[in-house]
Amino acid sequence: MISGVLLDLAGVLYDGEEPVPGAAEAVVRLRESGLPIRFVSNTTRTAKRAILDQLGRLGFPASDGELFTPAQAARTWLQQHNLSPQLLVHPDLLPDFDDLAASGGKAVVVGDAGETFNYLALNQAFRALIDGAKLVALAPNRAFKDTDGKLSLDAGPFVAALEFASQTRAIVLGKPSPAFFLSALASMNCPKAAAVMVGDDAETDVTGALQAGLAHALLVRTGKYRRGDEHRFTPPPTATVDDISTAVDWILAARS
Amino acid sequence: MISGVLLDLAGVLYDGEEPVPGAAEAVVRLRESGLPIRFVSNTTRTAKRAILDQLGRLGFPASDGELFTPAQAARTWLQQHNLSPQLLVHPDLLPDFDDLAASGGKAVVVGDAGETFNYLALNQAFRALIDGAKLVALAPNRAFKDTDGKLSLDAGPFVAALEFASQTRAIVLGKPSPAFFLSALASMNCPKAAAVMVGDDAETDVTGALQAGLAHALLVRTGKYRRGDEHRFTPPPTATVDDISTAVDWILAARS
Repeated sequence: MISGVLLDLAGVLYDGEEPVPGAAEAVVRLRESGLPIRFVSNTTRTAKRAILDQLGRLGFPASDGELFTPAQAARTWLQQHNLSPQLLVHPDLLPDFDDLAASGGKAVVVGDAGETFNYLALNQAFRALIDGAKLVALAPNRAFKDTDGKLSLDAGPFVAALEFASQTRAIVLGKPSPAFFLSALASMNCPKAAAVMVGDDAETDVTGALQAGLAHALLVRTGKYRRGDEHRFTPPPTATVDDISTAVDWILAARS
Repeated sequence: MISGVLLDLAGVLYDGEEPVPGAAEAVVRLRESGLPIRFVSNTTRTAKRAILDQLGRLGFPASDGELFTPAQAARTWLQQHNLSPQLLVHPDLLPDFDDLAASGGKAVVVGDAGETFNYLALNQAFRALIDGAKLVALAPNRAFKDTDGKLSLDAGPFVAALEFASQTRAIVLGKPSPAFFLSALASMNCPKAAAVMVGDDAETDVTGALQAGLAHALLVRTGKYRRGDEHRFTPPPTATVDDISTAVDWILAARS
């Protein structure tokens, strides 16, 4: 029984500015089946508005309420905790943190800052942490598939650096945080036992979803997938499939 | 019974270009007592020749054979393993790696690169690692006391980032590597049971030396020392003393 679908974006629906072949049709088939969909991305180099624009441009029109991003979760978390952010994020993500006011202290917020990760910025973050700031990771991903087709460092290694330096543990707000998966499920009234996640990151998408209690998690062999990924983390994927089209076949078959 | 002394440099003998008050006299007292001394530094922003010059300038004349550095250990290690280095180190350390030729593959060598730690350099190191290069850490220190008196990120956090990203473990060649301590002891025929280490880093100097089997390790309250450091790591220091002068008092008393 499946009553809700969570889809990762980069590496599942598109690679850079290229849709994965057949992906648009696959999402249409899902929508026509009546299954609700939420898009859960750990991409933190782009503001939410720009991700929605990109989705539309690439053939995956989606509404604001269907897209869940770590920056959005961080915004809510900062407000709940009355903390102001010291942002170590990509310049393109800054709009998602506009107009945040707080008086209760500071949190270092780390996203995939790309070339904004330099010694000075990391050292400023470290000094804030040893002065008592909280450490918030938008995402703990190790690597992403870069525009040259190779893997490049994602936010996770820089979070690990700051954790090691300051001897603190980061609060993770994107995948694989159970709260992140569950807020997306809650928005479509889908119980964990009837949910399926589709992603190309064997660790944060697949093992993360299963550890959060989702019944199913499918690993696609597109995007950052590298041979053997399905055996690298525990629990392993419910199934490993070629791409989003095959994943939709699997979901529609499992639903009936 | 004590028959050999290992001394850390920065934070113990000097802070930046300022000798710790009384440090030169303390080292002279040690030398006059007849105890052999070796200087074991994890500083990797400076070539060995420049450290020796600095020691002389600040009132601590030392011979080449008395100074042990991680870069020197790395040079030996690379030659033993026939590996050529991909250097992620401070430009001032490059002379220590001149004229290394090897044909057996590659090792990413990470020192305290300071502002040379940027996204591009770290990403190139990551890509070499997932292509099979070994990861060598000159030092795993979390932080050092910077010229403005505050703590700044040392090499360790960047090693941790690369370990996390590539899912590999670094080979550590400086302190707290037992081989590093033991090679310094061997050079003065000092058994572990008769050795004492003096340092300002509670983790790599003190706990590291004790875990390597040295009988004694003294923590000084100068340099990067912060209140409570003596309780942060296990095993704790044999004794915590104000500075190198008090450490020498302790050593000379313990010797008799």
